[in-house]
Amino acid sequence: MRVSIVMGSDSDLKIMSECAKLLEEFDIPFEIAVLSAHRCTEEALNYVKNAEDKGVDIVIAAAGKAAHLPGVLASHTNLPVIGVPMTTSDLGGVDSLYSIVQMPVGIPVATVAIGSTGAKNAAVLALKILGIKYPNYREKIQNYRDNMKKNVLEKNMKLQELGYKLYLENM
Amino acid sequence: MRVSIVMGSDSDLKIMSECAKLLEEFDIPFEIAVLSAHRCTEEALNYVKNAEDKGVDIVIAAAGKAAHLPGVLASHTNLPVIGVPMTTSDLGGVDSLYSIVQMPVGIPVATVAIGSTGAKNAAVLALKILGIKYPNYREKIQNYRDNMKKNVLEKNMKLQELGYKLYLENM
Amino acid sequence: MRVSIVMGSDSDLKIMSECAKLLEEFDIPFEIAVLSAHRCTEEALNYVKNAEDKGVDIVIAAAGKAAHLPGVLASHTNLPVIGVPMTTSDLGGVDSLYSIVQMPVGIPVATVAIGSTGAKNAAVLALKILGIKYPNYREKIQNYRDNMKKNVLEKNMKLQELGYKLYLENM
Amino acid sequence: MRVSIVMGSDSDLKIMSECAKLLEEFDIPFEIAVLSAHRCTEEALNYVKNAEDKGVDIVIAAAGKAAHLPGVLASHTNLPVIGVPMTTSDLGGVDSLYSIVQMPVGIPVATVAIGSTGAKNAAVLALKILGIKYPNYREKIQNYRDNMKKNVLEKNMKLQELGYKLYLENM
Amino acid sequence: MRVSIVMGSDSDLKIMSECAKLLEEFDIPFEIAVLSAHRCTEEALNYVKNAEDKGVDIVIAAAGKAAHLPGVLASHTNLPVIGVPMTTSDLGGVDSLYSIVQMPVGIPVATVAIGSTGAKNAAVLALKILGIKYPNYREKIQNYRDNMKKNVLEKNMKLQELGYKLYLENM
Amino acid sequence: MRVSIVMGSDSDLKIMSECAKLLEEFDIPFEIAVLSAHRCTEEALNYVKNAEDKGVDIVIAAAGKAAHLPGVLASHTNLPVIGVPMTTSDLGGVDSLYSIVQMPVGIPVATVAIGSTGAKNAAVLALKILGIKYPNYREKIQNYRDNMKKNVLEKNMKLQELGYKLYLENM
Amino acid sequence: MRVSIVMGSDSDLKIMSECAKLLEEFDIPFEIAVLSAHRCTEEALNYVKNAEDKGVDIVIAAAGKAAHLPGVLASHTNLPVIGVPMTTSDLGGVDSLYSIVQMPVGIPVATVAIGSTGAKNAAVLALKILGIKYPNYREKIQNYRDNMKKNVLEKNMKLQELGYKLYLENM
Amino acid sequence: MRVSIVMGSDSDLKIMSECAKLLEEFDIPFEIAVLSAHRCTEEALNYVKNAEDKGVDIVIAAAGKAAHLPGVLASHTNLPVIGVPMTTSDLGGVDSLYSIVQMPVGIPVATVAIGSTGAKNAAVLALKILGIKYPNYREKIQNYRDNMKKNVLEKNMKLQELGYKLYLENM
Repeated sequence: MRVSIVMGSDSDLKIMSECAKLLEEFDIPFEIAVLSAHRCTEEALNYVKNAEDKGVDIVIAAAGKAAHLPGVLASHTNLPVIGVPMTTSDLGGVDSLYSIVQMPVGIPVATVAIGSTGAKNAAVLALKILGIKYPNYREKIQNYRDNMKKNVLEKNMKLQELGYKLYLENM
Repeated sequence: MRVSIVMGSDSDLKIMSECAKLLEEFDIPFEIAVLSAHRCTEEALNYVKNAEDKGVDIVIAAAGKAAHLPGVLASHTNLPVIGVPMTTSDLGGVDSLYSIVQMPVGIPVATVAIGSTGAKNAAVLALKILGIKYPNYREKIQNYRDNMKKNVLEKNMKLQELGYKLYLENM
Repeated sequence: MRVSIVMGSDSDLKIMSECAKLLEEFDIPFEIAVLSAHRCTEEALNYVKNAEDKGVDIVIAAAGKAAHLPGVLASHTNLPVIGVPMTTSDLGGVDSLYSIVQMPVGIPVATVAIGSTGAKNAAVLALKILGIKYPNYREKIQNYRDNMKKNVLEKNMKLQELGYKLYLENM
Repeated sequence: MRVSIVMGSDSDLKIMSECAKLLEEFDIPFEIAVLSAHRCTEEALNYVKNAEDKGVDIVIAAAGKAAHLPGVLASHTNLPVIGVPMTTSDLGGVDSLYSIVQMPVGIPVATVAIGSTGAKNAAVLALKILGIKYPNYREKIQNYRDNMKKNVLEKNMKLQELGYKLYLENM
Repeated sequence: MRVSIVMGSDSDLKIMSECAKLLEEFDIPFEIAVLSAHRCTEEALNYVKNAEDKGVDIVIAAAGKAAHLPGVLASHTNLPVIGVPMTTSDLGGVDSLYSIVQMPVGIPVATVAIGSTGAKNAAVLALKILGIKYPNYREKIQNYRDNMKKNVLEKNMKLQELGYKLYLENM
Repeated sequence: MRVSIVMGSDSDLKIMSECAKLLEEFDIPFEIAVLSAHRCTEEALNYVKNAEDKGVDIVIAAAGKAAHLPGVLASHTNLPVIGVPMTTSDLGGVDSLYSIVQMPVGIPVATVAIGSTGAKNAAVLALKILGIKYPNYREKIQNYRDNMKKNVLEKNMKLQELGYKLYLENM
Repeated sequence: MRVSIVMGSDSDLKIMSECAKLLEEFDIPFEIAVLSAHRCTEEALNYVKNAEDKGVDIVIAAAGKAAHLPGVLASHTNLPVIGVPMTTSDLGGVDSLYSIVQMPVGIPVATVAIGSTGAKNAAVLALKILGIKYPNYREKIQNYRDNMKKNVLEKNMKLQELGYKLYLENM
Repeated sequence: MRVSIVMGSDSDLKIMSECAKLLEEFDIPFEIAVLSAHRCTEEALNYVKNAEDKGVDIVIAAAGKAAHLPGVLASHTNLPVIGVPMTTSDLGGVDSLYSIVQMPVGIPVATVAIGSTGAKNAAVLALKILGIKYPNYREKIQNYRDNMKKNVLEKNMKLQELGYKLYLENM
């Protein structure tokens, strides 16, 4: 069992490393590759076609601008593909978002938020999907959710104690 | 094993019935409910909290405008939630899309395309996700993909035979 | 009598402290909390359900991206909720704006401008709403408006005296 | 005690009559006027300046395109102003929305959704605001919210009974 | 020598037939195919890889929504690819436009206008490109441009003769 | 003294006839021409270069999509050019608007609203500009403004008399 | 004879000083004022109502966000009003643009480009408008246009001499 | 045989020098000019009218905001024109994009991506177009594509060797 992270360019690696780190935190084995939908389509297609046999369960694909990678991978596998739209300098990432989420009937890409938020959420979504099959992952989600909750409540308690001015100074 | 389709209003039912029909085609058991994130939050939260225990594997949630339902459900379950942004009369659905896809860190919604395309793709994405656990569904995906391919190639063959003018007349 | 400021994350505190400062300036008692619509929904809902009984008159809620907090709170209280859309790095805050303002029939959120302007205007709007019940607040609005006017007219007078070049140098 | 509905053109009356009907349903006395921010500014300003003395508590203002009316009224009264952005044929109402919600510091407009949803929600928001001062209105909100909830739950029950296909046929 | 028109779905054929008709008018031999970037990627890639050897000079590719076809074809051929963004029901075609024009470094798609205007302009652009190699096509462009000019000037003359009211009645 | 209306295509004539009719109402002599910035640039440039000598005072130019006509005319005359962005089927006219209003330093186009509103407002703006030189036009503006005011106030009076329900029935 | 520059806030002065400097360059007498459409409406309205009698020929109005100033001034004068949409931090100025250009029938604002380009072009447009009445200004426009032309042609000549690499180094 | 790069302002030279460098890399002779569609239209038109006779095969035109240059050049030549939309500070370049790509029927501009990506892709597109006529250029494309592929595969191999953490540190 494994998750595969694929990105269209190594310029996406910094953002996608946040996804990798979260997968590590969740003890989800993963592999990570730079494979362009346009520059090495055959290799990308072969990669995704073999993924199933190699034991990959989920593919996470990140790309920017006319972001074709997630959709192209999704069209060549029986595995679910999660798409992460990269922020872009000119249009803020709305180009990446439309190119990933507006897929035609039959080839869905499970799209998450633009940029670093999406990179992290791809890992959480993978965890939730894996939880369907692997009970231990379901526990991890529960823990992760409990921690998020605890974290907010602690911050709130601290805010109540310090007041907003002191809290701000301590940030 | 089951999929749950939840929508914020019965005005979304016509579109989401396309999702239901495809699930039937895939022999995926499903339940379908109208439960608003705002009008009956407790019932919606209870519904999704019990979903896991009732054997639901995936939640598909559809909503329009300030479309909170998918995100609110996602925040109360260990199950993956697929979000379908409804078309809206004034902004075309970009409001629904942003409200569903731009979820904060920790609570991802697997967002698909706006409107009827998304409704169908939610079913296909569910099928792909279920394929991770249930080998018979993986076969169904493969068949579905093979059929899509066959269908396009047949159309192309017909286009080659008839020429574009006759083809258009016969559409 | 009190106003309640709720925000989805302490990363919104810096902006929302501008709201708090203005409430202090208006002598409006307020409480301030970090409570996420997704990470601790029950706590957020309980908080807002008890608000009425605790003497809160108005809830001000700030959130960014798929900004569900104002709408979720609005659906659980008889109190008016003012929503402040946070600026976002990728889409400039248009995602927050749509997620807050485009609420469905029956659960309005009184939406103000994106970012720091909105944070301040939430306080002014609260003051105007409280003025309906509390005559002394109505006076405060009148003073605030008179001051704004005086301030612009003084700037204009200074501009007439100095000319635009000197004025600019002195800014 | 009264609410005042002002619209920039009688072409907005059809939509805003949905606001009026809801106010009637809530037993909120109201007056309704066509007064343009541009075509009869003095009359509009006098109207809003006198509103307070005449016993108006809230102003609801609707306008489209470069929708200045809500902001111009808001700048001349101590009363809270609710703004309803009208749908526009070319830009879908995003022009009206920006012109109403992006008000500068000091002159907030409580903006609701674009078009007919916003028209209705202006009435609900008015009800919530009036509830601060008038306990009987607070009850009405509670009833309204209870009814919304009942309505959704009944629809859901009907959907469970009929199944989605029969439900759709009976819509 | 030939131009190849490829479209992602036969639902694009009506619009793209306007391209085909113009190519016929220009005496440019062409072939036309329905080949999806996602549903039959291998066939699409083989098609475009063989295009060069079969004597194709230019590929015209039309697609809508997350419109990957033009970019995917462009990445597998030394031939120039012209992309036509299809109008879409929800986003008007801005999704198709971004997915086609915002291609990464190294794999340009020569993008033309959205919808039927773009379908026709793809033919004219092909004519201009072929004119570089084939002098007789350059003449055809000149004629086409002369005709456009004559056509506008005649309309203008008619407008001067009839006046705008009669002209409108005769339209 | 004359105003010149130029449009890029006779498909714009229906909308621009609303401009012409208003100019007639204002007794402003005008000429009207179909001259494309792209299809007959020389004729368009000659037309606008001679305009000044022929006694034209203002040029009104309408165009859609990549709407270059107003800007191209503006670059070849000392006369002010008013630009009217035509509504477009795919992007609603935001393409026309950006192509007309975002002119570079030195070649302004006085841009008015998209579509039919803009067509009429081009005539009113022309009237205001001519009023600088011709005192009788200044009177006409005053009358026009007085009429607009009277018209709104009469509508409001009628609304007060009939109530909103009867008013709506009589519309 | 004079031009009047009005801006909604002295934070717009830096940008609008570029307008003032160009007016000085054109020897166009001008006055400059900070007068808010919302904070001191009466003063703003009185200012613009008296403008005509004081000999003002054109009003240039700059504002940002829900930019009502140009439209409000335009509704109270027979003079033409030029609107300059200020750049905004969150939405880039598209909010200012829509609030200024999308004016309703009867109250046009002659809108120019967003930001500093628009500030300069407001001065050039004023010059062109004044040229209708004052022949010496028409000459100035011609000179300004000749200079722009000369300037580009000189740059081009320098580019031809130096080549693009040296030219870039010398920029 | 030559390519011509034209830009509307020398402020575009830095970006367009990336196009020039790539043309040099491809051994494509080129000339480069600053010629404004508005400031020196005649010179620009003469330039493009003579281009064909001087042996130019392709025109590459870059412009920003209301970016008319590519379209105006395209309307005066039988040669294909490639348009590069410049990034703009306020609207990110969507104004440039619409002004270039949305050309009317008969005058296509082959539009590439916004900004520096587009500048490079204009060179690659030119290379692909020239490859139709000149077999040696076709080889160069093949090499360029092979290099892109090799480059990605090498990066991927390095990523597999180093792991993502070390890879990131070495970037």
